[in-house]
Amino acid sequence: MKIAILAGDGIGPEIVAQAVRVLEVLKSDGLKFELEPGLLGGCAVDAAGEPFPEATRRLVTDADAAILGAVGGPRYDMLPRQLRPEQGLLGIRKMLGLFANLRPAVLYSELANASTLKPEIVAGLDILIVRELTGDIYFGEPRGIEQRDGQRVGFNTMIYSEAEIRRIARVAFQAARKRNRRLCSVDKMNVLECTQLWRDVVTETNKEYPDVELSHMLVDNAAMQLVRNPRQFDVMVTGNMFGDILSDEASMLTGSIGMLPSASLDDKNKGLYEPIHGSAPDIAGKDMANPLATILSVAMMLRYTFDQEAVAVRIESAVKKVLAQGYRTEDIYEPGMKKVGTKGMGDAVLANI
Amino acid sequence: MKIAILAGDGIGPEIVAQAVRVLEVLKSDGLKFELEPGLLGGCAVDAAGEPFPEATRRLVTDADAAILGAVGGPRYDMLPRQLRPEQGLLGIRKMLGLFANLRPAVLYSELANASTLKPEIVAGLDILIVRELTGDIYFGEPRGIEQRDGQRVGFNTMIYSEAEIRRIARVAFQAARKRNRRLCSVDKMNVLECTQLWRDVVTETNKEYPDVELSHMLVDNAAMQLVRNPRQFDVMVTGNMFGDILSDEASMLTGSIGMLPSASLDDKNKGLYEPIHGSAPDIAGKDMANPLATILSVAMMLRYTFDQEAVAVRIESAVKKVLAQGYRTEDIYEPGMKKVGTKGMGDAVLANI
Ligand SMILES: [Mg+2]
Ligand SMILES: [Mg+2]
Repeated sequence: MKIAILAGDGIGPEIVAQAVRVLEVLKSDGLKFELEPGLLGGCAVDAAGEPFPEATRRLVTDADAAILGAVGGPRYDMLPRQLRPEQGLLGIRKMLGLFANLRPAVLYSELANASTLKPEIVAGLDILIVRELTGDIYFGEPRGIEQRDGQRVGFNTMIYSEAEIRRIARVAFQAARKRNRRLCSVDKMNVLECTQLWRDVVTETNKEYPDVELSHMLVDNAAMQLVRNPRQFDVMVTGNMFGDILSDEASMLTGSIGMLPSASLDDKNKGLYEPIHGSAPDIAGKDMANPLATILSVAMMLRYTFDQEAVAVRIESAVKKVLAQGYRTEDIYEPGMKKVGTKGMGDAVLANI
Repeated sequence: MKIAILAGDGIGPEIVAQAVRVLEVLKSDGLKFELEPGLLGGCAVDAAGEPFPEATRRLVTDADAAILGAVGGPRYDMLPRQLRPEQGLLGIRKMLGLFANLRPAVLYSELANASTLKPEIVAGLDILIVRELTGDIYFGEPRGIEQRDGQRVGFNTMIYSEAEIRRIARVAFQAARKRNRRLCSVDKMNVLECTQLWRDVVTETNKEYPDVELSHMLVDNAAMQLVRNPRQFDVMVTGNMFGDILSDEASMLTGSIGMLPSASLDDKNKGLYEPIHGSAPDIAGKDMANPLATILSVAMMLRYTFDQEAVAVRIESAVKKVLAQGYRTEDIYEPGMKKVGTKGMGDAVLANI
C-alpha cells in the first residue's frame, strides 16, 4: 500500500499533517503502508512551474491512493488558466479516471446546532451522495456559443452512455452495501431522455445487487426532500450536474463544512481523498483550521480503497469521542466548549484512537 | 379586463370559489372585469373528451388572464399521455407563449414554525424566483436515446438564444423594480457555455435597468445559499432546469406549500395564475383545502397583468391579518390556533379585505 500525500496550499499542509499523524499511529499498530509526499496546486507552480508536475504524475500513478489537503489561493488567481492550482485537481482526476465522487453529508448530534435546520430534522443526518464526475453536460460535445440567424446562441450537450451509467451505479450499489442498503437514484426522466436512460440502466444494475433497495426521485423533488426530511436518504446516486447541485445543498444542511470529507474513485477503487472545504488562505499558518474533514478523508480511504472497514470506523469513532468531549476548532465553536487549534484537535483525535 | 376561471380538478373548484369571492368584492368596490369559467384538465376530458378543448382555447385567447385551481387525479392516470390533465397545462402554456414563471417563496412570520429551518433563519422570507419556462434543455434538440458503437446513449441539448435570455431577464428586472431592486442571476458559467451566454446577456440587459443591482451566482452555490441564508435574496432569475430545481427547493424552505401562488406570463404580461400545490384528490370536496395560495394568485394577477399594485397589496394584507388572527386550515394548523375549512378561510379573508 502506497499513499501519496499532497498537502497543497493554504491550510493544506497543517490539516494534512494531522491526518499523517493518525496514519502513523495506525502504522505503529500494524497497518502496512508507505507515505510519499508530492506537490499539487500552487505549491507545485512555485516549485516546478506547473500545478501537476511530472514527478507528481508518476507518484499518483504508482500510489494506491492519495490524500489531498486543498489547493489554490489569491496569489495564483492572476496566472493563466492552465497554470491555476485548480487545473492540478482537474488534471489528477482526469489522468486517473476518477469517475466516482463520494460525498458524505454527516451531522454529528453534538454539532446539530450548527445547521440552519432544526436539530430534530438534522441531528444524526448521514447521507452519502455518489456523483458521476467525468461525464454529463460538463463534458458533452457539441458545446459553444455561436451566431445563428443573426444572434448568439449558447449550447451544451447532456450525454451518458449505458457503460458510464452502469459503472457509477455499481459504485453506488456497493457503497449502499457498506451502509443501510438503500439507494435513491435521482434523475429527470419525465423530461430528459438522457436521464430516462439513466433510470433504465440503474434499474437494470439493481439485478446485480438484489439485496439493495432501489428507489428513484426526480431532481426537483430531491432538492425539496433534502430540505423537508433529509434523513429519509441513505445513499443517493446521480449524474455530474445534478450531483454538483445536490451534494452542495446536502453539505450545507450540516452547517459544518469543515467536517466533511470526500472521495473520488476509479474503477479499481483507487482514490483521491480530500476535505470538501477550500484552502482558506486567510487562516493559513495560524493553527486555526479544522483538520477533522481531512482525518475523516483518511477513514474514507481505508473504507473504499483498502477495504479496512474496522479501521475506518475506529477513526470515525475517535472523531465522535472528541466532539463528545467538547473539543472544537474555531469554525465549529460554541460557548461552553473547549476551543483548540489544528494541532490540538489532532492531539485530541490521537488520544481517542 | 376579462379573466378566465379554470377551476380544474380535485380541490380546484373549492379553492377557486374562494378566489372568485375575493374578486367579486373587488368588483363591487369598483374594479372592472368580467369572469368567464372554462374547463381544463380532467374535468375537460370528462365533459369534452380532451384536457384543453377548443372552447377553452378560445376563452384563454380572448382573456387577459386566467386563474387556475389545479388539474389531475388518479382517475385520469391510466389515460393515454395526450389525454392526461397535465397535457392541458402544457397546452395552455405553449399556446399562450407563457415563457416567464414567477414563483414567490414567502414565509409569513406567523407560520415560521412550519419550516424545517430555524425560525430565525426563515421568518419573513420573501424571495421571488423568475424561471424561464419554454426553453433550455427541457425543449432543446437534438434529444433522444440511440445505439452508438453497440450501446445505448442518451442525450439532450441545453440551448438558449440571446433573445430568449433577454426577454426573461427583462421580466426579472421589471419584477425587481416592483420589489427591492436586487436581482441575482443563477448560472454555471464556469463550466457551461450556454450559461456563459446567459450571464453575458443578463449583464448587458442590466444597462436598461441601471437602478436594479445585479449579482451572479453559480447554481451549486445558490442551492447552498438557499439553505444557509435564504433571506439574502430578493429576486432570482435562472433558466428552465435550474429554476425547476431552485424554485422547488425555495418553496420547501417555507414549509407551507399551501400558501404559495405562481404566475406564468407572456411578453405582454398576459398570465396564468395558479397555486403551486396540486389537486389533492384525497381531500377534494371535504372543505379542508387551503384557499390562500389561490387567493394570493389573484393578488399576483392584479400586480403583474393588471398593474394594480395597491389592490394586490390589499389582498396580501388581508391574508396577513387572517394569519395574525389565528385562522388556520388543516395543512398549516398548530395547537392554539382557530381551525377553519376552505370556506371559513374565505370568510376570514373577506372580513379583512
Ligand atoms: Mg459544486
Ligand atoms: Mg419542479
